[in-house]
Amino acid sequence: MTITDVPGFVAGGFACGIKPSGVFDLAMVATEDRLPVAAAGVFTTNLAQAAPVQISQRHLAGGVATAVVLNSGNANAATGEQGRADALRMCALTADGLGIDTTDVLVCSTGLIGIPMPMDPIETGIPKLCEQLSPAGGMDAARAMMTTDTVAKHAVAAAGSATVGGIAKGAAMLSPAMATMLAVLTTDAAVDPATLQSALAAAVADSFDMLCVDGARSTNDTVLVLANGRAGEVAYSALFDGLAEVCGSLAEQMARDAEGASKFVRVRVVGARSQADARTAARAVANSQLVQCSLNGSDPYWGRILSELGASGAHLDPERVDIAYNGITVCRDGIACDHDAAALEREMNGHDIEISCDLRSAHGEATVLTTDLSHAYIDENRRTS
Amino acid sequence: MTITDVPGFVAGGFACGIKPSGVFDLAMVATEDRLPVAAAGVFTTNLAQAAPVQISQRHLAGGVATAVVLNSGNANAATGEQGRADALRMCALTADGLGIDTTDVLVCSTGLIGIPMPMDPIETGIPKLCEQLSPAGGMDAARAMMTTDTVAKHAVAAAGSATVGGIAKGAAMLSPAMATMLAVLTTDAAVDPATLQSALAAAVADSFDMLCVDGARSTNDTVLVLANGRAGEVAYSALFDGLAEVCGSLAEQMARDAEGASKFVRVRVVGARSQADARTAARAVANSQLVQCSLNGSDPYWGRILSELGASGAHLDPERVDIAYNGITVCRDGIACDHDAAALEREMNGHDIEISCDLRSAHGEATVLTTDLSHAYIDENRRTS
Repeated sequence: MTITDVPGFVAGGFACGIKPSGVFDLAMVATEDRLPVAAAGVFTTNLAQAAPVQISQRHLAGGVATAVVLNSGNANAATGEQGRADALRMCALTADGLGIDTTDVLVCSTGLIGIPMPMDPIETGIPKLCEQLSPAGGMDAARAMMTTDTVAKHAVAAAGSATVGGIAKGAAMLSPAMATMLAVLTTDAAVDPATLQSALAAAVADSFDMLCVDGARSTNDTVLVLANGRAGEVAYSALFDGLAEVCGSLAEQMARDAEGASKFVRVRVVGARSQADARTAARAVANSQLVQCSLNGSDPYWGRILSELGASGAHLDPERVDIAYNGITVCRDGIACDHDAAALEREMNGHDIEISCDLRSAHGEATVLTTDLSHAYIDENRRTS
Repeated sequence: MTITDVPGFVAGGFACGIKPSGVFDLAMVATEDRLPVAAAGVFTTNLAQAAPVQISQRHLAGGVATAVVLNSGNANAATGEQGRADALRMCALTADGLGIDTTDVLVCSTGLIGIPMPMDPIETGIPKLCEQLSPAGGMDAARAMMTTDTVAKHAVAAAGSATVGGIAKGAAMLSPAMATMLAVLTTDAAVDPATLQSALAAAVADSFDMLCVDGARSTNDTVLVLANGRAGEVAYSALFDGLAEVCGSLAEQMARDAEGASKFVRVRVVGARSQADARTAARAVANSQLVQCSLNGSDPYWGRILSELGASGAHLDPERVDIAYNGITVCRDGIACDHDAAALEREMNGHDIEISCDLRSAHGEATVLTTDLSHAYIDENRRTS
């Protein structure tokens, strides 16, 4: 189930030639009737915003959009004035191909930073892709967003009587506000742009913002949603739930497919003074290189977790903290406690690890997704060519 | 040249049996005449302070000390009430052996977190070490502080007519405020405790706090200084310069000996709105896993540096930023610029790399030391046993 399982949306993706390898690198999502619909977006907080982020934010000012064009293989970031011209040209080509306004097109790019966009394949690719959009094209669009992802990422959820669909890419530079990621969501709920923006921002805060793999916030992070209204109005809570379920599923798929990861890890903090404190503490543990190294070695070295909690800035009394791996408590009141070492070893050798930290201060809770740190992560990232 | 090259101090170190391997694990530094002298300390900001940090802070309240006892092989952290009793016992044993007051003894521990201190070797080791202190013992003391360090770390500098000496350990969990490190400094300058504390804090801020290897702030970080006054008063600026030179040298020795590192890297930010902004930006680049991976691959992928600057929180216009590796500018006004690719490749393949980032906003400057991220770092940290 993917983005085009939401009635009224079409999509497509193929190889236009940006990537020398010939794999898919150009994607598009649009409304079936080519009419603008309510749209919202959440963008990177990085000051070094890529050109497509700048252009998409400008085009979203009116709260509507008809199509999204995306490419992988080049981030169009750190490309200055020429980069903005290229991103705008991608919108114009899409608008020409679909017979719509340029300002109703949003654009996303992902790939290497600092290299001018290769516009030749784009000039021929976009017009061709505009003619191939179909209600069966969601899978191809998701494939064409992939960079070092090994699997395409899709999710669908109910939002009351409406449906929410989503596709995404993200395998490195995963960190709150936000991961190095792109996601496009569709829904047939009828909703005004301002409400859609609120619901999207809230869903992102609970999902993509709770994914901490390597602490990097990239230049291109973007989450977009188009809402065509075909299913009529739904309650705000239903809309939020649908968006949150799709974003949460996509975030989990990203963590499970993170570069070089051999473990999928949930860091759960409970008993914090506030939810904000719980998030701060959970992110500190999840982002820790040393905690990630221990996870790589299946080593239950909880001392590093306590150290990260203590350095996180969250309010806590270290001598009240309890820490458990997959439900097996190894630290109680801040010191080592007896536990079943054989059972713990079995759990640590598994693929899915949940680290639970109870600060025993109040009732703030948060869960952050992360991975271990492996040789393969370094190998993936030590050379760009 | 080491800590005991400062007149009036004695030291020693040997293997007392904390480490099963039989390498040195117990160290001591004291005034030659066993009289208390002006003392100051800077301690970890981690809330999960190790027991020896808590005890040393208490004993420093009066601004004087006679001796410092240190062990490697166990951090005595996350050890609760028993840990504090053990740290206090280390002070009492030292006081008994030297014929001084327990409250005039400071204590430091480094090693694994969460494991009770093995007190048997300490009970026999400290009395024996008290009898072996000598003006030639600085080298042994530095050896006995080592954990994963591969070389002992020493430095000596002039402070006007006085001398400052220092020894330190630190090879992982290196990050500001502070690195996972211990350092003990001595000086024969005559100075009151409050002035000594100010000068030490300022020297630490410019040295150990500008060392960012893996973003971890440990439970045990401590820098101590004892000033015996034998050389008489010196100007504050001379005292600061001496302390800063010793701390700076020890910090560089730590970065050069960091776990698994194949590069020694200076990240220099100039043209920032303020010194604080420059430090924020330089630390963000230095702490970046992705930047460190590129350095490991000798890859001049400056896009990641620009992205980290943009996400750092420092004020900047990404389209004014210039970036250079060892003086070869690869990014000008935020975009790629022509450069001598062959010369750049030669520089990147070297061991010492300086990344220069000019924000071209104002005059704030900072330099942070870091390393690359290697397979060997992961191997060093994935298993504690």
